[in-house]
Amino acid sequence: MSLAENETATAPAALVPELRAICGEDGVLTDHSQRRTYENDGLAHHREVPGVVVLPTSAEQVAAVVRLCHERGVPFVPRGAGTGLSAGALPHAEGVLLVTSRMRRILEIDVANECAVVEPGVANLDITRAAAPHGYYYAPDPSSQQVCSVGGNVAENSGGAHCLKYGFTVNHVRGLDVVTPSGELVRLGGKAADAPGYDLIGAFVGSEGTLGVATRVVVNLTRTPEKTVTLLSAFESMDAGGGAVSSIIGEGVLPSAIEMMDALAIEAAEAAVACDYPAGAAAVLIVELDGPAAEVDAQVEQVEALCAAAGSFETRTASGAEERALVWKGRKSAFAAVGRISPAYIVQDGVVPRTALSEVLRRITELSADSGIRVANVFHAGDGNLHPLVLFDDTEPGAWDRAEEVSAKILDLCVEHGGSITGEHGVGVDKACKMPRMYGPDDLETFDLFRRSLDPEGTANPDKLLPTPRLCGEQPGVRRDVHPLVASGQATQF
Amino acid sequence: MSLAENETATAPAALVPELRAICGEDGVLTDHSQRRTYENDGLAHHREVPGVVVLPTSAEQVAAVVRLCHERGVPFVPRGAGTGLSAGALPHAEGVLLVTSRMRRILEIDVANECAVVEPGVANLDITRAAAPHGYYYAPDPSSQQVCSVGGNVAENSGGAHCLKYGFTVNHVRGLDVVTPSGELVRLGGKAADAPGYDLIGAFVGSEGTLGVATRVVVNLTRTPEKTVTLLSAFESMDAGGGAVSSIIGEGVLPSAIEMMDALAIEAAEAAVACDYPAGAAAVLIVELDGPAAEVDAQVEQVEALCAAAGSFETRTASGAEERALVWKGRKSAFAAVGRISPAYIVQDGVVPRTALSEVLRRITELSADSGIRVANVFHAGDGNLHPLVLFDDTEPGAWDRAEEVSAKILDLCVEHGGSITGEHGVGVDKACKMPRMYGPDDLETFDLFRRSLDPEGTANPDKLLPTPRLCGEQPGVRRDVHPLVASGQATQF
Repeated sequence: MSLAENETATAPAALVPELRAICGEDGVLTDHSQRRTYENDGLAHHREVPGVVVLPTSAEQVAAVVRLCHERGVPFVPRGAGTGLSAGALPHAEGVLLVTSRMRRILEIDVANECAVVEPGVANLDITRAAAPHGYYYAPDPSSQQVCSVGGNVAENSGGAHCLKYGFTVNHVRGLDVVTPSGELVRLGGKAADAPGYDLIGAFVGSEGTLGVATRVVVNLTRTPEKTVTLLSAFESMDAGGGAVSSIIGEGVLPSAIEMMDALAIEAAEAAVACDYPAGAAAVLIVELDGPAAEVDAQVEQVEALCAAAGSFETRTASGAEERALVWKGRKSAFAAVGRISPAYIVQDGVVPRTALSEVLRRITELSADSGIRVANVFHAGDGNLHPLVLFDDTEPGAWDRAEEVSAKILDLCVEHGGSITGEHGVGVDKACKMPRMYGPDDLETFDLFRRSLDPEGTANPDKLLPTPRLCGEQPGVRRDVHPLVASGQATQF
Repeated sequence: MSLAENETATAPAALVPELRAICGEDGVLTDHSQRRTYENDGLAHHREVPGVVVLPTSAEQVAAVVRLCHERGVPFVPRGAGTGLSAGALPHAEGVLLVTSRMRRILEIDVANECAVVEPGVANLDITRAAAPHGYYYAPDPSSQQVCSVGGNVAENSGGAHCLKYGFTVNHVRGLDVVTPSGELVRLGGKAADAPGYDLIGAFVGSEGTLGVATRVVVNLTRTPEKTVTLLSAFESMDAGGGAVSSIIGEGVLPSAIEMMDALAIEAAEAAVACDYPAGAAAVLIVELDGPAAEVDAQVEQVEALCAAAGSFETRTASGAEERALVWKGRKSAFAAVGRISPAYIVQDGVVPRTALSEVLRRITELSADSGIRVANVFHAGDGNLHPLVLFDDTEPGAWDRAEEVSAKILDLCVEHGGSITGEHGVGVDKACKMPRMYGPDDLETFDLFRRSLDPEGTANPDKLLPTPRLCGEQPGVRRDVHPLVASGQATQF
């Protein structure tokens, strides 16, 4: 029985009858035009049409699909809503793309134990919608939260503007049902605190689909704060804004978010949404404070005074929902807005320790000046998570390469200053070959031993997360010629 | 060259010259009387004299010792201060006991990045002592914090009274240097947030020495709160006290600690330290609130009102350091105090979801009545972490066995109600054979695959944490006859 020409014709084709038996007729997509819909995630310059797409509706179906892949040595790639920014859900041309979009039931809102039990395809914001009537919300808030899936958040350990105070996804996952790469359904953790044994929840969260597929997630619910206030403070230089960040944190205030934008990002946002930020600002800080009203009121005064002392020439304070939305409008539109001042741009994602923030921002300015390539900075200043936008004209030959070079150099700066190659977008395909910049061969070997312990066949999301000769070439830097961090005594790494 | 009769004469004896070359003459103990000092940790009914004891002074020495053990197939057991309560540091008669007590330098207090870098032998409280002049402290506070080591805290994922608000050790470790069981020195995480790759920090914290030895630890420093208030509230029944806990949490107040004691525990504390708790109390709650003064003041009023509404007949509020110490005096002395009303006792450690607290406490009372064995309850009520003290007379034949049976049944109750066999004391040798009560074969196999990926030879703290036929016998319940949680659909487990 041969498939029509436009249907799956490679390795997974042989699996199609069995996949249909598992997921039903409508749970398996073989038509090329349907498969093509899934050819990329949010990082669109990596594309691959999946061999076959399956849409399971239960943990048992997921386990059966994964077990089949394991037995036949066929790669599988898990995918949630496909909003990821590191090509972590890039399909495999000869593999199965396992999409969780039909597993979107909220199974339980358990207010007394302050948790929710959900299927992986549930949209991040839907948990908050379900919990809100009880006075609770789900804290991790990636900017894609309206559409991104909890399963994808688990895979990428997603953060968001408010992870400064509330932490990443890993800090909010209490229990997981997981289908391992060999197709076993295991349960890690649960509603009670601190389960014994290895904390594989921690290792699974952020494993980018390489350790299997989450089929049920127990997440913490967080009490909706009594009061939230958003401050907007304008500065004449990025250094002055950075100084305000340091003094706020140094004084022991823990805002729920501290966001920073530079002149170019402000200009773009102004052009796009007329957000009416203070004229002449070379930097704006958005500082959000939440908690009991008594605490927030005291902290607002403190932050206002600290911003003034750091040289702010204007600070606005917004407490109503509408007023606050206005303050956030510029920040939230910034990425899209940059599209109005540049034909194309690369969104970089790196982290530096807070103390290195000013120095690294200065070096980025120098890099930009030296290369003639504009860089707009919009970032989570409180936890040192930079999101430089590297602007270029994609109609100009070689422009992408030059932008990519600047973008890569920014990551090098982060690593040199003891930071990291990604804050919240993950490694995926996009940065796998950059892992040796952060980790030595022993470190990577330790990761790889762990991966292979659960996935000896290498069928779970291959060529993601860790560098391989296939992915990165046999060039120096992959596994071999890199100095182990520890042996080389790069104390600044720490 | 033969060793003196009282010196190491088993497997590790052959390693002694090499161990001396690594750690120096004074870094290797072979004399029986010296080795015997280390025969048990805080759980004294498990004893074993180690084959040889080494006291390395650097990460390089640790790595060389572990590599040697790996090459020769000799087991090693890491040990910090030896205060653990699950026999996790029980020595191996034919192995090397690797004691970190000489690695006790505080390498850095980095206020701007709110972290400290320390060696594993540093005492928990010494970090707070070093950070206090800067207005910071180290949050995890096991009751042994004056002497227990940070390395031991990492191995056991230690908690304490204040982990309700501040989390366990795993929530405060940002980076680790680790010697893996094959003797490689690797670096996980660092000062910046959210390092890419598998979060092996999370898995390593709480791995009880089975994945290697931490040689350097980067921990979060927490800002010393502006104000701390401690409330003592007395109730006529445990149920009423439990109701107060539920309503405090349900109202969204997050105290730094909520401790509860029952009548027997109060009686013991009163007899021992005359703590002057309200007469006639069948339950007392200690509720500690900390944070900005404005917040704490508002919350104190709220908690007072909630306790009154739940039926408290007396609530005392203490804010000065001395007054607060008086409130804590009874609680802190309770374990030792029980020694005055009973010749011997077993300290159990289990967890239940908050909602199951009242039910499980009632069942413990029934168990106690049915068996005629007294049980005193002193526990972290806020996070459902029970510490029942099972009292018995160790001079009476069979009394230990009957007490142990009640103690084991309490754990079964915890698991039945969706809880866990340990909250903060760990699994060690003591509870390894109880792991199949919580986990099915697939779950345990997944843990074991991970363990073996880093320790294929099984030399790192063998017979701890996971059940083995050697440890638990070939009886049903070990790996074989246990139903997988997921397959058996025990939804209450979650």
